[in-house]
Amino acid sequence: MSQNIAILLLSCPDQRGLVSRISHFIFERNGNILDLSEHADPTEKVFSIRVAWDMESFTLGQKELKEAFTPLANEFKASWSITFLDKKPRYAIFVSKYEHCLLELLWRHSLNEYNIEIPLIISNHLDCEPLAKQHGIPFHHFPITKETKEKQEEREIALLKEQNIDTVVLARYMQILSSRFVSAFPNQIINIHHSFLPAFAGGNPYKQAYERGVKIIGATSHYVTDVLDDGPIIEQDIIRISHRDSLADLIRKGRDLERIVLARAVALHAEYRILAYGNKTIIFE
Amino acid sequence: MSQNIAILLLSCPDQRGLVSRISHFIFERNGNILDLSEHADPTEKVFSIRVAWDMESFTLGQKELKEAFTPLANEFKASWSITFLDKKPRYAIFVSKYEHCLLELLWRHSLNEYNIEIPLIISNHLDCEPLAKQHGIPFHHFPITKETKEKQEEREIALLKEQNIDTVVLARYMQILSSRFVSAFPNQIINIHHSFLPAFAGGNPYKQAYERGVKIIGATSHYVTDVLDDGPIIEQDIIRISHRDSLADLIRKGRDLERIVLARAVALHAEYRILAYGNKTIIFE
Amino acid sequence: MSQNIAILLLSCPDQRGLVSRISHFIFERNGNILDLSEHADPTEKVFSIRVAWDMESFTLGQKELKEAFTPLANEFKASWSITFLDKKPRYAIFVSKYEHCLLELLWRHSLNEYNIEIPLIISNHLDCEPLAKQHGIPFHHFPITKETKEKQEEREIALLKEQNIDTVVLARYMQILSSRFVSAFPNQIINIHHSFLPAFAGGNPYKQAYERGVKIIGATSHYVTDVLDDGPIIEQDIIRISHRDSLADLIRKGRDLERIVLARAVALHAEYRILAYGNKTIIFE
Amino acid sequence: MSQNIAILLLSCPDQRGLVSRISHFIFERNGNILDLSEHADPTEKVFSIRVAWDMESFTLGQKELKEAFTPLANEFKASWSITFLDKKPRYAIFVSKYEHCLLELLWRHSLNEYNIEIPLIISNHLDCEPLAKQHGIPFHHFPITKETKEKQEEREIALLKEQNIDTVVLARYMQILSSRFVSAFPNQIINIHHSFLPAFAGGNPYKQAYERGVKIIGATSHYVTDVLDDGPIIEQDIIRISHRDSLADLIRKGRDLERIVLARAVALHAEYRILAYGNKTIIFE
Repeated sequence: MSQNIAILLLSCPDQRGLVSRISHFIFERNGNILDLSEHADPTEKVFSIRVAWDMESFTLGQKELKEAFTPLANEFKASWSITFLDKKPRYAIFVSKYEHCLLELLWRHSLNEYNIEIPLIISNHLDCEPLAKQHGIPFHHFPITKETKEKQEEREIALLKEQNIDTVVLARYMQILSSRFVSAFPNQIINIHHSFLPAFAGGNPYKQAYERGVKIIGATSHYVTDVLDDGPIIEQDIIRISHRDSLADLIRKGRDLERIVLARAVALHAEYRILAYGNKTIIFE
Repeated sequence: MSQNIAILLLSCPDQRGLVSRISHFIFERNGNILDLSEHADPTEKVFSIRVAWDMESFTLGQKELKEAFTPLANEFKASWSITFLDKKPRYAIFVSKYEHCLLELLWRHSLNEYNIEIPLIISNHLDCEPLAKQHGIPFHHFPITKETKEKQEEREIALLKEQNIDTVVLARYMQILSSRFVSAFPNQIINIHHSFLPAFAGGNPYKQAYERGVKIIGATSHYVTDVLDDGPIIEQDIIRISHRDSLADLIRKGRDLERIVLARAVALHAEYRILAYGNKTIIFE
Repeated sequence: MSQNIAILLLSCPDQRGLVSRISHFIFERNGNILDLSEHADPTEKVFSIRVAWDMESFTLGQKELKEAFTPLANEFKASWSITFLDKKPRYAIFVSKYEHCLLELLWRHSLNEYNIEIPLIISNHLDCEPLAKQHGIPFHHFPITKETKEKQEEREIALLKEQNIDTVVLARYMQILSSRFVSAFPNQIINIHHSFLPAFAGGNPYKQAYERGVKIIGATSHYVTDVLDDGPIIEQDIIRISHRDSLADLIRKGRDLERIVLARAVALHAEYRILAYGNKTIIFE
Repeated sequence: MSQNIAILLLSCPDQRGLVSRISHFIFERNGNILDLSEHADPTEKVFSIRVAWDMESFTLGQKELKEAFTPLANEFKASWSITFLDKKPRYAIFVSKYEHCLLELLWRHSLNEYNIEIPLIISNHLDCEPLAKQHGIPFHHFPITKETKEKQEEREIALLKEQNIDTVVLARYMQILSSRFVSAFPNQIINIHHSFLPAFAGGNPYKQAYERGVKIIGATSHYVTDVLDDGPIIEQDIIRISHRDSLADLIRKGRDLERIVLARAVALHAEYRILAYGNKTIIFE
């Protein structure tokens, strides 16, 4: 996980020779490709690729690599990024009162399932402070009211920037982020919504599901955009319910789903397996 | 399956002694209970029960049984039905152009998975006529235009009544039934909708799903009510998709789902395992 | 959960009138049945039932109830138990080095998902002691070698008896229990095996699965009997894998499965929903 | 599907530059890569790849392509194949008495889900002859007894060779093929076994599952090798069962599973997405 590996994520208008030229670029600089997946969308004519290669005997350093690749990327009219696994990205987790998603992430983090750092946890409540302390992670309390919301968000953004946070995970954080906040972290804010989106967007999805009498409930992890519960979907999963399940049972069963779906989404993001374009994601598994 | 078995489906306001008194009613008339399931909704305070018993040494005939049970049911303020498995209910299947759901039902029917009769198939197109013929089932063609719709529905209802049809299965029938039609068969019209309701109700659900970028698609079988795609849900299931799946792939994968979900819903209905109340169903498995 | 509710679990040779007579017994003593499920095995001619009823206005106390029911049970030649939810059963958890299953159980316990007490944790290693301490549960260390095994088991059994332990949960406990231990807790020892039994019984199931090239791995929770990995199965679940998954990936993915399958099995056991007969279980859901 | 597309399946010892050199080979001959997936097994140090490219403006014909690629493949010490989708492979289906798997395959074939031809169906019984006739496919009856088995297999092989059959699908064919038969079609005989292999190999898997009291049953599609039910696994799936399910219910529920698992395996094989090495498969999805 923490080896010197480079990961290229790239998408561009489709054309002949893209795989060949990209893999040749790596090969001729002595890189050993560990994993390559590509996808050509036949409708949108968009080409996407994820390549991971070993930097050990690569002839360029990290900085030179990006410079050397830029002309090729420009020629392809690509949007792209190259990341190196030897430096762990920094994740901030936002929570409110429910701790199950936070617990799941911290537990996996302690098992080194994620190649990330979690330098801070932010909450509008104090309920999860003990759990943060158990894991030795600084806990920041930003209580929020209608009146203080704007100010508090400003302070949160300042803290995130100061701490060089790359990615924000909303682990059942029960506040809607402002446009300003969202635009500060484009496709870098991961939310878990406790329904099978687009069904039951908005508040109280389990109550909505209970009242509709569905036979299956779901959870959805997605990137946060300006429109509530409408961003690119990363991962979804479901569980069967029946008439025997009360609303409380739905909430209890849903907890298990939320935990696992958010945990998978964070893993995919942390391994740079997600390419968001438009309102969709490509998941390179 | 075709034995002389009685099935009671009953729901009423919850009170003490319901199971005892109902099971005692059967026991003292020498019935052997084969299967009993009950459910007490703690929120709505509604009691529901399904009991199946052997009529072989029962001391009452079918007609007398219903008469004898009526006072008890009245005392409970119950809505109820008693059905006997020695007489097969009569199902009509409605189709349009796609044959996969029809094929699935006819194939299971030929294997005696359902204890029903299928005396007729109705379609607004001719595509499925050969399949109906292969199975020796009369095929009735009712082409429908905006102008003829009302007339044709009248003729369809007349045919269904004349043929003593109990249940109508819409096996991807692409016409919206009128209120009049629906009210002629309350909770006896089973539809398959090719989405995970309430997501993607209405037309072109696979296209909607494709455009939203969901990671899972579903199918929903429900009773038809006056509001489109809003009736009590009987059964749902899902299948994973990915960015690699085109709209055509969704349609193809969805076919498998539609078939299996509709087939299960028909089995549950044919075994009298469904009790619809309000906008929900209780499934006695 | 902690109300005064009685739960009868009973199985006996099938005969007419069992449901009626049992429910009547409860009704005439003013008990309100909250939940009743029964099953008549048509092959073995065995009748099984689970009934839960409210003891609030019941005319008998807990002790008198058992006495009053005994003659009926004897007449039915039944094996049976009546339990009362106002007293929490006492569970001991056994672990070795892996903490994920223990963590899952303790976390659910802290959310009151289980109506049980966990007065002690036993381990042959020290790895899980910090987790036990975090939850304020006494941790007992019984290191085991070939030579000390018999002695240590004796001491464990003595401790369990002294602490009035009802149920033992093996949360990835990597020692095989002796016959003597097993027979001290018949159908009260719950194990999690990290394969889809009966496939890959014994040691290193993930390695076995990896080498066989299966496309799905599983986990199985079962009661412990004298024959290794052969007791009555309580719950199983599976997860998809692919050629991309290394043995380490199988172990990681399997952890999620083990946690959830063991957690469900413990819930079923704690709610007295399991009736084991022969080598099978009936699960009253 | 039936376009002029080339598909390369290749595996060889892993080394630097494989993706680059293979994609460059295609690019410099004016091929447009439509799909490329690769896998480097870190344990076995084996590299595997599937590449599909458009032959429309390719500078070489089909024959020349293979010749031109041979030196590269030799250098890589690769086992490989190049197939062209403009020519449909020829599949023979073997059945015994149960028709559900055959029906599923023929139905999908009639919807053009598979890019294959099915010029003949072989059976040791007559039960499926009407179904074959309905689809206009020649049906060959080879009744088999202990005494005639060897002779009949010889005749079957002769017929398959004469008809240029590429792949044999055993759609619940209840005879064990001899070594000689198997070796005539290496990794080209697809079987469906009605259990979650390696659990319940051999005869009567549903009965074995019923008696073991499992909570989940499965089906497995695999390539046939000399050892019964032991060949490389292509696809598996499962379904939940409970104590309420009789052996007959297992058989009925299992039918749905067998159909879908075999259908998926045939699709993967027909799209050249499977690379078998040793006792495993790589599935390029």
